[in-house]
Amino acid sequence: MATQAAFVVKFPQQLARPSRVQGRPVPPARVGIAVSRGPAGKSVSAAAPRVVRCRAGGLIEPDGGRLVELVAPEEGGRRAALRREAAALPHRVRLGRVDTEWVHVLSEGWASPLRGFMRENEFLQALHFNAVRGDDGTMVNMSVPIVLAVDDAQRRAILASGATSVALVDDHDRPVAVLSDIEIYKHNKEERIARTWGTTARGLPYVDEAITNAGDWLIGGDLEVIEPIKYNDGLDQYRLSPAQLREEFARRNADAVFAFQLRNPVHNGHALLMTDTRRRLLEMGYKNPVLLLHPLGGFTKADDVPLSVRMKQHEKVLEEGVLNPESTVVAIFPSPMHYAGPTEVQWHAKARINAGANFYIVGRDPAGMGHPIEKRDLYDADHGKKVLSMAPGLERLNILPFKVAAYDRKHNKMNFFDPSRKEDFLFISGTKMRGLAKNRESPPDGFMCPGGWKVLVEYYDSLTPPEDSPKLREAVAA
Amino acid sequence: MATQAAFVVKFPQQLARPSRVQGRPVPPARVGIAVSRGPAGKSVSAAAPRVVRCRAGGLIEPDGGRLVELVAPEEGGRRAALRREAAALPHRVRLGRVDTEWVHVLSEGWASPLRGFMRENEFLQALHFNAVRGDDGTMVNMSVPIVLAVDDAQRRAILASGATSVALVDDHDRPVAVLSDIEIYKHNKEERIARTWGTTARGLPYVDEAITNAGDWLIGGDLEVIEPIKYNDGLDQYRLSPAQLREEFARRNADAVFAFQLRNPVHNGHALLMTDTRRRLLEMGYKNPVLLLHPLGGFTKADDVPLSVRMKQHEKVLEEGVLNPESTVVAIFPSPMHYAGPTEVQWHAKARINAGANFYIVGRDPAGMGHPIEKRDLYDADHGKKVLSMAPGLERLNILPFKVAAYDRKHNKMNFFDPSRKEDFLFISGTKMRGLAKNRESPPDGFMCPGGWKVLVEYYDSLTPPEDSPKLREAVAA
Repeated sequence: MATQAAFVVKFPQQLARPSRVQGRPVPPARVGIAVSRGPAGKSVSAAAPRVVRCRAGGLIEPDGGRLVELVAPEEGGRRAALRREAAALPHRVRLGRVDTEWVHVLSEGWASPLRGFMRENEFLQALHFNAVRGDDGTMVNMSVPIVLAVDDAQRRAILASGATSVALVDDHDRPVAVLSDIEIYKHNKEERIARTWGTTARGLPYVDEAITNAGDWLIGGDLEVIEPIKYNDGLDQYRLSPAQLREEFARRNADAVFAFQLRNPVHNGHALLMTDTRRRLLEMGYKNPVLLLHPLGGFTKADDVPLSVRMKQHEKVLEEGVLNPESTVVAIFPSPMHYAGPTEVQWHAKARINAGANFYIVGRDPAGMGHPIEKRDLYDADHGKKVLSMAPGLERLNILPFKVAAYDRKHNKMNFFDPSRKEDFLFISGTKMRGLAKNRESPPDGFMCPGGWKVLVEYYDSLTPPEDSPKLREAVAA
Repeated sequence: MATQAAFVVKFPQQLARPSRVQGRPVPPARVGIAVSRGPAGKSVSAAAPRVVRCRAGGLIEPDGGRLVELVAPEEGGRRAALRREAAALPHRVRLGRVDTEWVHVLSEGWASPLRGFMRENEFLQALHFNAVRGDDGTMVNMSVPIVLAVDDAQRRAILASGATSVALVDDHDRPVAVLSDIEIYKHNKEERIARTWGTTARGLPYVDEAITNAGDWLIGGDLEVIEPIKYNDGLDQYRLSPAQLREEFARRNADAVFAFQLRNPVHNGHALLMTDTRRRLLEMGYKNPVLLLHPLGGFTKADDVPLSVRMKQHEKVLEEGVLNPESTVVAIFPSPMHYAGPTEVQWHAKARINAGANFYIVGRDPAGMGHPIEKRDLYDADHGKKVLSMAPGLERLNILPFKVAAYDRKHNKMNFFDPSRKEDFLFISGTKMRGLAKNRESPPDGFMCPGGWKVLVEYYDSLTPPEDSPKLREAVAA
């Protein structure tokens, strides 16, 4: 298994078809990812410098110039030593689901140059400027706080002991990581929420999940993770790190990488957009633009379609040839979802720079949702695109505004909206799509590939009210 | 009156004593403020380019490299023409008190390089990044939105007519300015408030005054003001524009300008701080550091001491020699007060760069206040200083953290707090000071100069409940 292709996404087509792309050849010497490969095909960083300089071919540089990796290397005994060190630490902070997702995100360098949970200076910069200043004085984008909360008793105990490190443990009390050179500061939840979401209305999913009941203090520090975060849900193979993605893009001789963030079921409108984007990039002179189709895999709200269902759908889309596997890499983005609109879309874009993407497709109302208590969208549908295009630290990224696709009743397929014959077009929202699937109705021909639709219907078939959350039951009933 | 000293602050000492400062001589050729002087000593900009290049001596450059001035010049008939143009415009937007203060602020270039009320791109950048990108791509600090609201009916009428300019009029319907190349966009009040204040709690003074009842749309555009904004309250002589201040600093051969923002009565602790700051700057090698003592003159909350009282106090402080008039310029900063803590302190500092200050003294909890509904301060007392020191676009400004002064009972005067004998120190908060003055009690010897205290007591004497706002009555009764 210790092959070059070991972590390539295992969609049948991708493994079956040889790569015949006409990319600009990348001299092997320039593919300088300092990543060695373990026997099981896992990517682990080389022993000494855990910060990996990562410049694969002509790929965009990670923020801060170097891709941060915070997983202890297997070689040299560091992993075992760190495990012993963590076990011996007197203070343990238990990680919730979202906390673990952030440990994952940080450990692989999605948030480069961040090297751990934010200290107060970083937290304040994220809240006020949506960017933090790197060591060299330049601003890198960082729009959402990546923080870990502790409660009053924990804070008092840590301060009283004079400890400078704490162990981070999972819900079975097993050490996951060590946070060192710690700093504890106030968790002003109201201010954090107001500045991140632009509202303090009750009912924001991330707030309910990860902030309301969290401690009143935040603990920042340098993170070192004992071993790669795994979920053992049958989807870990799709969880490629930025270093792995960069290696894959280099292997494919990509001279442009365009990222598409999705948390909803994929349909043929998306596919049309992605295919069209590749065509436009070829027209711009790129020889081999590669799509990073990158569904979000962390926390999502109760009525969103679960990751496992969405991944099955993505498989079908490639199996049925809706997207070309040769120019597509499907992987999971491990971040939790904030639903924080213009603030969050910056994080979605910035993280993909670190994975090697230099083009980012931004849609209408990215990371948006309905206002939790008023009858309107929380964010203006255009603000995400506007804010993204002006954001500090994202100057190097090319923003590709989403062209609006809708169901073209004249040609019975998804098509880019043509205002000169608007009566031909049918807009099928996520809500409408879910409604059809819940009622076991067929979508219009060509809206979604048949396999993808089947996956969705089967998911709703599997929902039995007693197992659902009240919110989900409500959504299904709606 | 058309003399060089025409707009020098008219404190007796300043006019009586000749300037004997040992400043680095500034060659007259470098004092390149393109400002001509009218017969009444008013500063008006030269005819053709209304943007004035302003590099007096070694003073810090204004944001964007050029000081913006938006008042029509008297010469060349532009003022009369603009007045006619404004009178003929079909759409008129009436300016409230705070709106007029912003017109004043914009017209004199405090917000350089801003050339009018914000369009949506600037508004979004201010909200999300506390900074806007200038024409050359660099970020300049801009932390509070400077916007003008219109209601739904006005918006519909303007859009229906296809107008590209509107007249801005005072409460007697007299034209004040023209806003051209307009853009109308949504005024999402909740989001604006949340992102500016970090809370949406009811009772924020600026929100109550200028946002809650404002229109649901914002109108941005290029501003041209017919004539300088005057208030005719006996204090206009203190309202020096950034260009006038720069000229005054150059005249005094200042090689450093340190600004002190104050909205509370000045006491000897402030004076100690300012004197000590000058001493430190001299130690740093500056030959003639000049203090810009710069009380805020726009909207303040009902229980703050009014501007007229504070200015009388400032006069006494200089008359009684608490501060040295030779190295002090007292002027009024025309901005309204947001009480937005770390967000607002950036605006306070940025505006002073445009007036020529390269040092800014920042205190504990700048622009802070109590939380409107919870029993705590709205902002962490240290956040203002921290955020200011990291803010984008303020890299050129030297931040001088406030040293804490308190009443030293051992030496019967204000002194810097010495933690080794903390029992000797008495902290006299603004609330406590107001309480003493309201009760006609004397403050401890040396807390405030006698003349300054008298002014404060006379103010509280003059307050008769029937004339007060309920909030003020409550504050007086407390």
